[in-house]
Amino acid sequence: MPITANDPKRKTWLDTSPDTDFPIQNIPFGVFLTRDDIITIGTRIGDYAIDLGALHQLGYFKEIELTDDIFLQDTLNDFISDGRKTWRLVRNRIADIFDKENPQLRENEDHRKHILFTMDEVEMQLPVQVGDYTDFYSSKEHATNVGTMFRGKENALMPNWLHIPVGYHGRSSSIVPSGINVRRPWGQTMPEGETEPVFGPSKLIDFELEMAFITTDANVLGEPIPVNEAEDHIFGLVLFNDWSARDIQKWEYVPLGPFLAKNFASSISPWIVTLDALQPYKVAGPKPEREQLPYLQYKGKKSYDINLEVYIAPENGQETKVATSNFKYMYWNMSQQLAHHTVNGCNVNSGDMMGSGTISGSTPDSFGSMLELTWRGAKPISLADGSERKFINDNDTVILKGYCKSDDIRIGFGECRTKLLPAIKQ
Amino acid sequence: MPITANDPKRKTWLDTSPDTDFPIQNIPFGVFLTRDDIITIGTRIGDYAIDLGALHQLGYFKEIELTDDIFLQDTLNDFISDGRKTWRLVRNRIADIFDKENPQLRENEDHRKHILFTMDEVEMQLPVQVGDYTDFYSSKEHATNVGTMFRGKENALMPNWLHIPVGYHGRSSSIVPSGINVRRPWGQTMPEGETEPVFGPSKLIDFELEMAFITTDANVLGEPIPVNEAEDHIFGLVLFNDWSARDIQKWEYVPLGPFLAKNFASSISPWIVTLDALQPYKVAGPKPEREQLPYLQYKGKKSYDINLEVYIAPENGQETKVATSNFKYMYWNMSQQLAHHTVNGCNVNSGDMMGSGTISGSTPDSFGSMLELTWRGAKPISLADGSERKFINDNDTVILKGYCKSDDIRIGFGECRTKLLPAIKQ
Repeated sequence: MPITANDPKRKTWLDTSPDTDFPIQNIPFGVFLTRDDIITIGTRIGDYAIDLGALHQLGYFKEIELTDDIFLQDTLNDFISDGRKTWRLVRNRIADIFDKENPQLRENEDHRKHILFTMDEVEMQLPVQVGDYTDFYSSKEHATNVGTMFRGKENALMPNWLHIPVGYHGRSSSIVPSGINVRRPWGQTMPEGETEPVFGPSKLIDFELEMAFITTDANVLGEPIPVNEAEDHIFGLVLFNDWSARDIQKWEYVPLGPFLAKNFASSISPWIVTLDALQPYKVAGPKPEREQLPYLQYKGKKSYDINLEVYIAPENGQETKVATSNFKYMYWNMSQQLAHHTVNGCNVNSGDMMGSGTISGSTPDSFGSMLELTWRGAKPISLADGSERKFINDNDTVILKGYCKSDDIRIGFGECRTKLLPAIKQ
Repeated sequence: MPITANDPKRKTWLDTSPDTDFPIQNIPFGVFLTRDDIITIGTRIGDYAIDLGALHQLGYFKEIELTDDIFLQDTLNDFISDGRKTWRLVRNRIADIFDKENPQLRENEDHRKHILFTMDEVEMQLPVQVGDYTDFYSSKEHATNVGTMFRGKENALMPNWLHIPVGYHGRSSSIVPSGINVRRPWGQTMPEGETEPVFGPSKLIDFELEMAFITTDANVLGEPIPVNEAEDHIFGLVLFNDWSARDIQKWEYVPLGPFLAKNFASSISPWIVTLDALQPYKVAGPKPEREQLPYLQYKGKKSYDINLEVYIAPENGQETKVATSNFKYMYWNMSQQLAHHTVNGCNVNSGDMMGSGTISGSTPDSFGSMLELTWRGAKPISLADGSERKFINDNDTVILKGYCKSDDIRIGFGECRTKLLPAIKQ
């Protein structure tokens, strides 16, 4: 099926800026609260939020087989369950409705009033109810950097790392959308040279620059997903900030992995950019350094060229870019991750979220966490206001951005913007 | 509020066996499919399944503030959200309805027909939609045994273990109720002495004898639950078999913990026994061997005396008891686990499940896994049919049982019974 929504020549009758993340070729999906306090599923073109519930009620999707209330929901889970064929039909139809040449909605002022909002009139929600959240650890540069700091250069990359897309389970309940503040957590730490742990607010709060993909009901318990079919079950991606408390992590993570160091919050960008929209940005991934087992061997290109940036803004201060990375640096791609996750029969559901792990490049300015950027605090970063950061300070805002670019088209993710509030009193 | 449903003198007008796990003092909650193919929330007395949806429609709960459809649901999540006061009122009311002295339902044959099923007429379902599943590692004996085998005696118990109720996130999607078969998983392993991993069905499938507690909407993101308030947010417990593939686990678990070795399946008993029903069996826990941080220090008794048993039944063979343990052996109790889990502000929701970790005692016949019982296969177990087991064979059924006992009252959990099917062809 051709993905006509991606046609680079298409223009919209909506007034959009040429450098928007959301041209008519993007058409992401999200959930928002309208000015009338109604929750609806929507899409975005330029700075317009588009109410898909209203569009559907007004008959704009009548050629597509959809239940009446599919967009009148507070999560995308049911729509995602409808499968890739339906996502494509809907996305193509939206592109048609907003195409410059199509007068149907453009000339209907009454309909436009029900359907169109400006972005400042809506409040973005979590786009899915996350059933299970898995976090991978698929950037070789990140695993090597962290391994070196936590276990020394000799044991940096574990023997399994080049054979397994290492992953672990995370906490879904504390995933919040961009714009929701998070709190500095309390926890146990073991200070250097001490023999008794202490309890207090974490002193080493970090971001992790990640992306996450959202799956559909991909398989039933017991049935693996082959690596070359994996993309059929991926709805789209978001930016993902896997907040981490490095001092808590160091003390707790042996032998079962990070727990409270991670589960106090993870932040995501609210618009899910579909895998379909990202097709023009497919690229080859890094060459395997060791032969991979057959269930992880794939055909064709499975990596995506997505530029990633991290900014820090102190309270009342301007944003400073602190890192520039790219999703294509990942050693293990999403297809390999999903094939590995299900090779034992583990079942994946609509709305499940799978984080990439921190995405670091090979140069020091491309590292995806403060831990790596400042090398555990040894090399502080200077911000535009003259202050320095080893980790994240109270009331700092961390902003992740991501976009693809080819010729004149830019497909972006908007922002994942989160302010770190001081710890509560205990 | 007195928990009158626990009155040991109370008798029921239903015909029940004296050694049932489900006397009128138990009154657990579950979800079942009736002979009419209707899903309902119910309870159990003796071998009767009781349709609470029908009881409510017929007006038996009219003194309690409940929404009309609270029991006409396919999970207990909304009922659990109603909170402890409501759970108690409903449980006490059920005890009244089935009290020997109460003729209201006993003498109403038409109502009885709508409300009462025998257990063989219903099909038990998963009682909750599990939002997040966390597994703790709270038995000192188990942690010591496994640590000795995986890392040697010197590093058996990690330095953090006596300070932290160590836990990690698990997979909720693959939690299944008793009676659902599970498949031997495929996966990567690194055979002893080799340098390249191999791919095949796991050769070392194990059970883990655990219990799990189910929470209500306990807190909002950012707000910890104090240790002495934790039990207010615990609805009840089930038996929990945390299936494990030891060979996959050994190769994958460093540094982020077990993943595919665990997430192919976990099995639970279908009736949630309320924490209220277990109050008579509260006991003091093990004395801390190291001083615990104040947020983990609790008042009163927080452990529970629950006898636990594991049986293995080969195909067409009889059950052999292979382990006898007790929930009271846990070094860290549920209150400490929940306080720890939320001390960083992590939010807990209705239907979340928290496993205890494998519950081993101090003697070799009280170990809660084959790994420990056979000491990694070095000391095989003999079954009643004369066969031997190092781990679990294809078509073996593993049965967990659990019960409390005092005077003439036995409060039990029924069974968690799961057959291991052979690996699929790949």
